[in-house]
Formats: sequence, C-alpha cells, structure tokens
Amino acid sequence: MAGAFPPSLEILVTHLMKLPTIGRRSAERLAFHLLKSPREQSVELSEAVVRMKDRLRRCSRCFNITEDDPCAICRDPSRDSKILCVVEDAPDALAVESAGGFRGRYHVLEGCLSPLKGVTAGDLHIAELDERVASEGVEELILAMNPSVDGEATALFVTQRYAPKGLRLSRIALGLPMGGSLEYADEQTLQHALSGRTPISGRES
Amino acid sequence: MAGAFPPSLEILVTHLMKLPTIGRRSAERLAFHLLKSPREQSVELSEAVVRMKDRLRRCSRCFNITEDDPCAICRDPSRDSKILCVVEDAPDALAVESAGGFRGRYHVLEGCLSPLKGVTAGDLHIAELDERVASEGVEELILAMNPSVDGEATALFVTQRYAPKGLRLSRIALGLPMGGSLEYADEQTLQHALSGRTPISGRES
Repeated sequence: MAGAFPPSLEILVTHLMKLPTIGRRSAERLAFHLLKSPREQSVELSEAVVRMKDRLRRCSRCFNITEDDPCAICRDPSRDSKILCVVEDAPDALAVESAGGFRGRYHVLEGCLSPLKGVTAGDLHIAELDERVASEGVEELILAMNPSVDGEATALFVTQRYAPKGLRLSRIALGLPMGGSLEYADEQTLQHALSGRTPISGRES
Repeated sequence: MAGAFPPSLEILVTHLMKLPTIGRRSAERLAFHLLKSPREQSVELSEAVVRMKDRLRRCSRCFNITEDDPCAICRDPSRDSKILCVVEDAPDALAVESAGGFRGRYHVLEGCLSPLKGVTAGDLHIAELDERVASEGVEELILAMNPSVDGEATALFVTQRYAPKGLRLSRIALGLPMGGSLEYADEQTLQHALSGRTPISGRES
C-alpha cells in the first residue's frame, strides 16, 4: 500500500516495521490506531520510548538493567549475597525475579558463548564474575541460561570454571512446562524431564 | 513480570499495551528490542509518532487523511471528478488507491451507519457528499463499504439517497479472495460469489 500513504504516515510505518514480529500490515494497523487515538496517547508513548532509553543503564555490579547504579537488588541488604543466579541477559533476570521466590542476587553475562558468532568468554562479564566470587563471599551459583546449544555451552563453561573453586553449582530444571503435554513434547525435553525426575515426598517419608 | 521492571521500562510496556493486538508479552518484547537497539532508532520512532499526529489532517473536500488540504488526489486535475469511490474510512481509501487502477476521486464517510452504536447519517459526511454531488458534476458512485452488516446498511442508505437523483451506482464485488478456496469459504461469501458471477468473454464473443 506504500505509494498512497502521506509521507509522515509512511515514515512511521517504516519505523514500526523495524520492530520484531511487526510486518507491513501490523505496522499499518498500529499507525492507523495511533492516527485515530488522542494526540496525548501518542505523545506519551513517544516520550516513554525516549525516557526509557535515557534512564536505563547497566548496574555496574550485576549488569542487570536499572535506573540507579548499583541496582535495587544489589543495594538490598536483605538479599542473600552468597547465592548468585547467573543469566544470559536482563530479560532473563527480570523473568526469574518476577517468578518470585529467589532471594539471592543476579549476575548478567550480557550474552552467551557462541563460537559461530565469535562470542568468547572475553565478551561476557566473566572477569567481573571472578571478581564477585572472590570478593563477595559467593558460595553458590544457580545457572539459569536458556536451554539452547549456546546456553548449554555457557553453563558448561561456567561450571568448569567455578566447580574447582569449591562453589555449589546447579542448573535450573529442564522438563515439561506447566500446561504442556507429553504427546507434543519434543524428544530432548522428554529426555531431560525423565533424567531430571524428582523423588515424590510420600515415597521418601 | 510487572514488579521487577525498572519504572521507565514498566511505563513504556504499559503504553505499548494500549496498541491493538499487543499484549503484555509482546509489549515486553518490543520494549526489550528498543532497549537493545541504538538510541537513534528509538528517537526516530518516537519523533515519527508525534510528527505523524501533527502533520496529518482530513482533506476538507473528501475527508481522506492528508498533509495538505485539499489532498493530492482532490488537487490532481487528471483524476476524474465525475466518479467518486465512497468508503467508510481513510485506510479503505488508501487500500483502494494502493490497489491501483482507480482514476476517480474519493469520499470518506468517516464511519458507517450503526443503529447499535447510535451512529446516524448526521454523524457521517453525507451532507458534504450531497454538496459534492450537486456542485462537482458527479455522475457515478462506487460503493466500497466493508462487507459487514453496518457496511451493507450504509451502502443501502447511500443507494436509496442517490439513485433517485439519476447517478450511476455500483457496489464493489463480493466473492472469493485470490488464493481462497471454495472448501473453506463461508456460505454468505459463496452465495455472493455465485450471484455475482461474471460472464466469460469467450462465451460472449
């Protein structure tokens, strides 16, 4: 529908199409929605984008995203500094935090090892993790990388680096998601679900 | 995931969720994308939203959206002023225009009759269409309302209003879309496709 659009509408559509999962049709629908909605709503959205970019930075200790440095979790004295949850990137840390129940702190690697993309340990915040392990009395690392080839490689790398130093290490469980079904689970997930089975408490007692 | 988000990120997610088809998860994905992308890209998107709102207005003649009034189509002397394509709203006019092949002009009603929503002829640009029919030498109206109950009602209303004035009236064809299949077409579409069948030229000659 390109040619018929007024220039400012076409430019907006082009910019919206740079967003993930937004194709031409979706971009047009969003643009028409903004066109019809009150000016105020568009201005607020527009300002929220730039404000987010300007306010957010990386925490200099855990590399999670934050408005203040160090971040609220690193500053919170009630969080257990002996346990670090190691994640690939900020959205992963936010997901674990939102799930609730974890009272330790985080360490965001800002990526994962990927020989194909040329990402090595030097590109991740591994040196900073060394430093924290040495200076903060860390006793346990919970590895919460994504269950992908690169995520597994990164978990293996971290394990081999810190296990010899006497830290407790664990990997978050792989298995069926809540609401998932055995019938549609892929083989790898099922294998992990089987090998990672947990004893039933009735049997233990 | 709400609680764990830094405020400026949470605000952006809230604003993105006001957009159609964007739920919490999609809004988060878009926000994280903007977070990771260069600041410039976010600023450009942000400016494009506000610029679009500020520059676009309705053409005072045809009520299509435009940056200049009257719009480029109304100003273009090569367009046939005797034929008006009547549509519900601006995206419909842009869709017809982008399809190409139409050399007349448009009239955007800015809505369609809807007894349920309390939309009457007085809420649409019907008076302005009367005026154009009277003053611009219009001879033909192509009714391109959506194939919905309200769209059909609006087409019927326009037909009853202008047929007595001696104008040629036509309704865009309803039938199977390109790539559609008989097997999955609904009954109404098939009925329209049958009753609106077109003679095959080989037979005519």
